[in-house]
Amino acid sequence: MAKNKVRLIPLGGLGEIGKNMLVVEHQDDILVVDAGLMFPENEMLGVDLVIPDVSGIVVTHGHEDHTGAIRHVMNEFDAPLFATPLTRGLLEVKLQRGGLLEKARINTINAGDRVDIGPFGVEFFHVCHSIPDGVGLGITTPAGLIVHSGDFKFDHTPVDGRLTDFAKLSQLGGQGVLALLSDSTNAETPGYTPSEKMVSEMFDRVFPKAPGRIIVATFASNISRIQQVIEAAIKHDRRVGIVGRSMVENVRMARDLGYLEVPEGVLLKAEEINRLPGEKVAIVTTGSQGEPTSALARMANGDFRLLQIEKDDTVIISARPIPGNEELVNHIINNLFKLGADVLYDQLLDVHVSGHASQEEEKLMLNLLRPRYFIPIHGEYRHLMLHAKLAFEVGIPPDNIFVIENGQVVEFEQRGARLNGTVPAGYVLVDGIGVGDVGQVVLRDRRLLSQDGVVIVTITVDKQTGRPLTEPDIISRGFVYEREAEGLLEAAREQVTAALEDSVSHTAEWSFINTRIKETLGKFFYDQTHRRPMILPVVMEV
Amino acid sequence: MAKNKVRLIPLGGLGEIGKNMLVVEHQDDILVVDAGLMFPENEMLGVDLVIPDVSGIVVTHGHEDHTGAIRHVMNEFDAPLFATPLTRGLLEVKLQRGGLLEKARINTINAGDRVDIGPFGVEFFHVCHSIPDGVGLGITTPAGLIVHSGDFKFDHTPVDGRLTDFAKLSQLGGQGVLALLSDSTNAETPGYTPSEKMVSEMFDRVFPKAPGRIIVATFASNISRIQQVIEAAIKHDRRVGIVGRSMVENVRMARDLGYLEVPEGVLLKAEEINRLPGEKVAIVTTGSQGEPTSALARMANGDFRLLQIEKDDTVIISARPIPGNEELVNHIINNLFKLGADVLYDQLLDVHVSGHASQEEEKLMLNLLRPRYFIPIHGEYRHLMLHAKLAFEVGIPPDNIFVIENGQVVEFEQRGARLNGTVPAGYVLVDGIGVGDVGQVVLRDRRLLSQDGVVIVTITVDKQTGRPLTEPDIISRGFVYEREAEGLLEAAREQVTAALEDSVSHTAEWSFINTRIKETLGKFFYDQTHRRPMILPVVMEV
Repeated sequence: MAKNKVRLIPLGGLGEIGKNMLVVEHQDDILVVDAGLMFPENEMLGVDLVIPDVSGIVVTHGHEDHTGAIRHVMNEFDAPLFATPLTRGLLEVKLQRGGLLEKARINTINAGDRVDIGPFGVEFFHVCHSIPDGVGLGITTPAGLIVHSGDFKFDHTPVDGRLTDFAKLSQLGGQGVLALLSDSTNAETPGYTPSEKMVSEMFDRVFPKAPGRIIVATFASNISRIQQVIEAAIKHDRRVGIVGRSMVENVRMARDLGYLEVPEGVLLKAEEINRLPGEKVAIVTTGSQGEPTSALARMANGDFRLLQIEKDDTVIISARPIPGNEELVNHIINNLFKLGADVLYDQLLDVHVSGHASQEEEKLMLNLLRPRYFIPIHGEYRHLMLHAKLAFEVGIPPDNIFVIENGQVVEFEQRGARLNGTVPAGYVLVDGIGVGDVGQVVLRDRRLLSQDGVVIVTITVDKQTGRPLTEPDIISRGFVYEREAEGLLEAAREQVTAALEDSVSHTAEWSFINTRIKETLGKFFYDQTHRRPMILPVVMEV
Repeated sequence: MAKNKVRLIPLGGLGEIGKNMLVVEHQDDILVVDAGLMFPENEMLGVDLVIPDVSGIVVTHGHEDHTGAIRHVMNEFDAPLFATPLTRGLLEVKLQRGGLLEKARINTINAGDRVDIGPFGVEFFHVCHSIPDGVGLGITTPAGLIVHSGDFKFDHTPVDGRLTDFAKLSQLGGQGVLALLSDSTNAETPGYTPSEKMVSEMFDRVFPKAPGRIIVATFASNISRIQQVIEAAIKHDRRVGIVGRSMVENVRMARDLGYLEVPEGVLLKAEEINRLPGEKVAIVTTGSQGEPTSALARMANGDFRLLQIEKDDTVIISARPIPGNEELVNHIINNLFKLGADVLYDQLLDVHVSGHASQEEEKLMLNLLRPRYFIPIHGEYRHLMLHAKLAFEVGIPPDNIFVIENGQVVEFEQRGARLNGTVPAGYVLVDGIGVGDVGQVVLRDRRLLSQDGVVIVTITVDKQTGRPLTEPDIISRGFVYEREAEGLLEAAREQVTAALEDSVSHTAEWSFINTRIKETLGKFFYDQTHRRPMILPVVMEV
């Protein structure tokens, strides 16, 4: 590889929600930025989580979609981690839970720091986001300066008072930026993203009017939002209960590190929550994405022991559903209403603002840095395309804009940048305990099973002749209700018997009998029901 | 039943998207309003469509979620249908396809007509909606006047020039309305729903700038939107191709009935579409909800023969995704971008306006009619609750507002209205050919299968002693990839053998062996993988 050649590869990093992982490669050195988990998509039936399969890492901020895969990759790599104090704290909560904390070599960095990681000089600058202590990266590489925006917005009145570092961005722009990689999540949204302050204003309107308890659901990592609830509670004379395991852990950690200011006497112990009158209580809890095992989902189902929803409760869902989670969230809202609560959510009120830059801010980032090349990152393909259009509008030539998908390689050399092939960048699927043991075949089968169910045909045949020795037995699951479909299954049995008796040359060839059963029943069931269950013949030879 | 007692029962009609069916009952007479199909929910795996199981019908307008179940209920009931000309035309297209057109007794009615249906006098009044020829109903019953809004909005500049009938609403209000049942779909949306005219204005901005073909996807029943595309095409010198079977059928029918004005020479035959230069072509097609077999989905996949997406194409998705369809639609948008098209959709531009009243219009309806009782209909539970709040705000006493779910009965008598029990109102599930042959058990099984797959254990045992005669055989689908999990399955086999050898008292009791295998493997697989596949023992006795 040429001396100054640098390759950028999104790995499980671009193109869809979550993963946000990037590899920066020079000769034998690899720098990885972020390693997140995506929420499983609808198509990945029964798979809990999805992680990319590479490691060695700078972490830009503490959200799950940038840190969630780290405890998994820790098992495979032994690279040092670099993170700001809060990000480190959130990581440690996760690693502790997986028993991996001792193994981890985490270096604390702060915005303004510069560290050398192999041949790369990495400078961290502060960016506003929906979590404190986020950073973007100025990466000095042998090919030139590459800037990674992190997840950002330009909030002029952030909860913690720390602005996105305009000065540093201008300074980097002055140095000459080879390439900018910038957050595309909100490329569909015109204008500016409102400040987090808007949410505090909403709390100030809602808190005084709520007749009973106020229950705010948000992400456990959304430390600023938790701070806002605590401040509103103090202002309006309520005490605060923290509910949900990850919420409790994160609040403790953020408080210890000084990222959450909670005066003594504000927090309620679990057993105190039900002792105070409702109008003196605010609750912060998990479940804003409708996660079925979260505290909020259990409250909505009426099976959360600590807290039963009552008529005067006001529930605020302070988040926007991630695409695909809408139905889960709506289901919970419907159930909370049925239990008599008042529910305030995204559609009704400014209960949430996005943590990501909208179009005008994306243009501002581009204009502050004036990069030679632009690579939109974070978001689905349409977001990347729309972000690319914005870059074109502010003057980046179309040939210098790379809209790339997972595993596509952008190579930088003296004479310029170009796409140069792809590397395998499939996801590793985490399902239950194991990592990587659910493949496409298994997922495809689950999808088939979920559509028309399964029919199992058991038959004993003569080892020599292949002739059936018994009537076939048929069991079905997820296909038809057996008690009501006896006639159908009886007829199916006859079809199988006839097909095997019928066959011109009897044979003990297992695959022949197998295929014959599948074909016969496949056609028969489709004719009768227009469904295509998975057919599994079990042939016993005696 | 008392002489003037009238019961209202939503049946597959309230509480969720789609179904919108209502029963009005007096003594032995039943009037049914609408019978729609809902889009299957995520939870109903593999079920194509869902219908309520009652019939005999006034149809308010021609949308699928109000008419889709009619061809199914036709088979069970022989009640006359009442519909306006366009609604009738759309119904006939559907019935023709099912071979049911001869059986149907359809009466054409028009807004302004009044017909007696049993003891009910039904007056039809025009309402604006996203389809022409919609009506609301004034139903004179022995208990008093009940008004059903239909799906409505107050559009002051509708495409067909016909306003919602304010005069009739005021007149009904003057007569004294016992109860109003009103559309709650947009109860989350403040203000007024914009006029359909806004979409024409968008077309006027987009059409002149598009460098190649314009492809507009919308509902096949959205005759007004199709009219708008045709008008924009004529204005901007393009000819129009109609693509997708239901689109072609509906356009032909609406044109025959005079609901669609298309000058000669505007429509393109299928074979002409690719002959004209792109900038002379506009296409109207189906697939705006991401339906996987629709023309648009196939274009996005690159497997639609008639029309390949090209670089200069502009695709306008002129609809809003129905909750639950977001991911399907997003997937198509991503793929269209990947094929090089420009895509305009809901998030970016006013490509669509809702056909339903927003909060201020809902209040206007309430104030025009000043009903004694109010029952919000159409929408999920949260929409009904929010609509109820609006009714309370305009002065309906809380005790006179009934937020009810499917099957709940509201009974009207001289002394007033009250909730009086429920009737069974489950859905009938249509899956493949049969109606009603997929029950909860089958759906539950599909859900289980879709999560962790299935493991089938086959073993031959001695008929007398229950001792295993063979090693057990294990097949799995959707659980683990067998080639990679040989060790796990081998260990599972040993577990089964040991468990059966082990059992204190051998027995040929089938259920005992069955249970033993299930328990053993259930525990073993959970320990090893944290998954819970469905375990199906197949025990053969010889």
